[in-house]
Amino acid sequence: MDIPKLLQDSLKGDRVAIGRAMSLLESQVAADKILAVQLLELAEAHSGNAPKAFRLSISGPPGVGKSTLIETLGSRFTDLGHQVGVLSIDPSSSLTKGSILGDRTRMQNLAINPKAFIRASSAGETLGGISRNTFQMMAFMEAIGFSIIFLETVGVGQSEHLSWEFTDGFIYVIQPGTGDELQGIKRGITELADIVIVNKADNENLRAALLTRSEYASALHLRSNPRYGFEPLAISCSALTQDGIDDVVGQIDKLINSWKQSEQYEVIRERQKQNWMIWALKNAVQELWQKSWDDSQLHSIQSSSVYRLEIEIEQKIKSAIADLLK
Amino acid sequence: MDIPKLLQDSLKGDRVAIGRAMSLLESQVAADKILAVQLLELAEAHSGNAPKAFRLSISGPPGVGKSTLIETLGSRFTDLGHQVGVLSIDPSSSLTKGSILGDRTRMQNLAINPKAFIRASSAGETLGGISRNTFQMMAFMEAIGFSIIFLETVGVGQSEHLSWEFTDGFIYVIQPGTGDELQGIKRGITELADIVIVNKADNENLRAALLTRSEYASALHLRSNPRYGFEPLAISCSALTQDGIDDVVGQIDKLINSWKQSEQYEVIRERQKQNWMIWALKNAVQELWQKSWDDSQLHSIQSSSVYRLEIEIEQKIKSAIADLLK
Repeated sequence: MDIPKLLQDSLKGDRVAIGRAMSLLESQVAADKILAVQLLELAEAHSGNAPKAFRLSISGPPGVGKSTLIETLGSRFTDLGHQVGVLSIDPSSSLTKGSILGDRTRMQNLAINPKAFIRASSAGETLGGISRNTFQMMAFMEAIGFSIIFLETVGVGQSEHLSWEFTDGFIYVIQPGTGDELQGIKRGITELADIVIVNKADNENLRAALLTRSEYASALHLRSNPRYGFEPLAISCSALTQDGIDDVVGQIDKLINSWKQSEQYEVIRERQKQNWMIWALKNAVQELWQKSWDDSQLHSIQSSSVYRLEIEIEQKIKSAIADLLK
Repeated sequence: MDIPKLLQDSLKGDRVAIGRAMSLLESQVAADKILAVQLLELAEAHSGNAPKAFRLSISGPPGVGKSTLIETLGSRFTDLGHQVGVLSIDPSSSLTKGSILGDRTRMQNLAINPKAFIRASSAGETLGGISRNTFQMMAFMEAIGFSIIFLETVGVGQSEHLSWEFTDGFIYVIQPGTGDELQGIKRGITELADIVIVNKADNENLRAALLTRSEYASALHLRSNPRYGFEPLAISCSALTQDGIDDVVGQIDKLINSWKQSEQYEVIRERQKQNWMIWALKNAVQELWQKSWDDSQLHSIQSSSVYRLEIEIEQKIKSAIADLLK
């Protein structure tokens, strides 16, 4: 595979090339990973290391209309001059509880917008939208010129928090509703969200939507330490009727400006890389141990042997990391 | 340090020796770890690998009376002929929100009971009661003859789940109460608990306690797949007045018998060792990366370099694990 050519074509906006590059970056085949690193190195040599794209999590439970919202927001931001990248979940290939529509019919307009690129990953290979190479895929999109990247994640507890750790902004999408379930969700989310969007605020839902919005607004108001000095807020809208979308676009724009002006954004990006490395290494060590154990045909092991192995593996990991960071 | 003698003295029930052995097992000093492995190997060579002690999590929010309950239950089980080991959290040495009483005044009677041994770990060095060597400490206690081991964990979300993964039985202690907080707690806990104990069911709390108990009982009743065929249940009691304690003791005894008779207990113990290894390796890799990174004085790194390092470290971990399991 001609990696320099793949990069050149991607930089020109060749959609087939970008698609091939993303597949390479997503691959778990060892040989592909080496090529993927080369591609990313070349791309970053071209673009430099300073953050250029705002990476924005769009998280929420299944069925609240995240993809319709991304389609709408994506079009608006290309109108404002942005190049829009989307990492979404392909529901047709898996057991996701999300939309049962195939991926072709999701984000239909954005998919053919020349200033946007949508990459849908199989839900089965991701943890609610975070795959083993999400961070590398976002880095590549940024390096080839995308200025805003939407990362769609579906709320399964851990994935929301990971998504927050790996991106610059966090939007939580919910539909009108109340009760226990809301309480449970609200507690964690109001610690993370920059913007809560109550979607489907139309027709008979309108009244409930306003109530839900004000509940979230009160909860968000209690947060002590907003990022970038951006005051978190709750907005209701309807991606279907477009009511309230102008407000959403305006607030996201304000969030992006706060991020740019905060002078913290390079520090925050470095922290994301650290978070990513730790997450990736934890995943790796779990997988590698499980696989080696299953292959080893040992069926029983004493606790003392577990402890001895643990100490020995730790020692080897320690040397490996120290060597590589020398 | 004379490891064989330390084991012999511990087997004789010498409390000073057991205390020294536990300190050795808890130590994070590299040289101590080597000695700790030797001690555990000798102890397991003596005792064999089959599970002999029932390891029981006593989990719950701060202030619900877990230590009073362990004191009471510990005494009852020594009366029934058990050797009782306790791994508890020492609240006096840290920022725990639990009891503000010093450790000497907690479990006062059990502490001087010759058939019991209490090891309190500093809360600051544990994750809600789970420390880096909790599993090894339980294994040692079991190997030197303790037949029931209480592991006290204080609910901070993750620690409850870990505690469940590493032990044979899970008791959740709560005090009378209702509302949102209960709802949030209940959802997760009723998936884990073998027994929910509503403590402080005395005096003016009695009515609320019975209500809380019946709410948990309904939720537990919905669980599809109880362990060992033991039907999970909720009990109210007062560790203070001893009301309901007979019932609690009887149900724990029933749980232990179900475990013994399930013929799954060796499989379950092996799974615990696997869970422990994965948790320990994840902790190790996170700590080792963070420390090496901080030491490296690199302040900025490209995403492609993160990815290259990730692949290289993975490769080394893979070789290390495969070598050691050969």
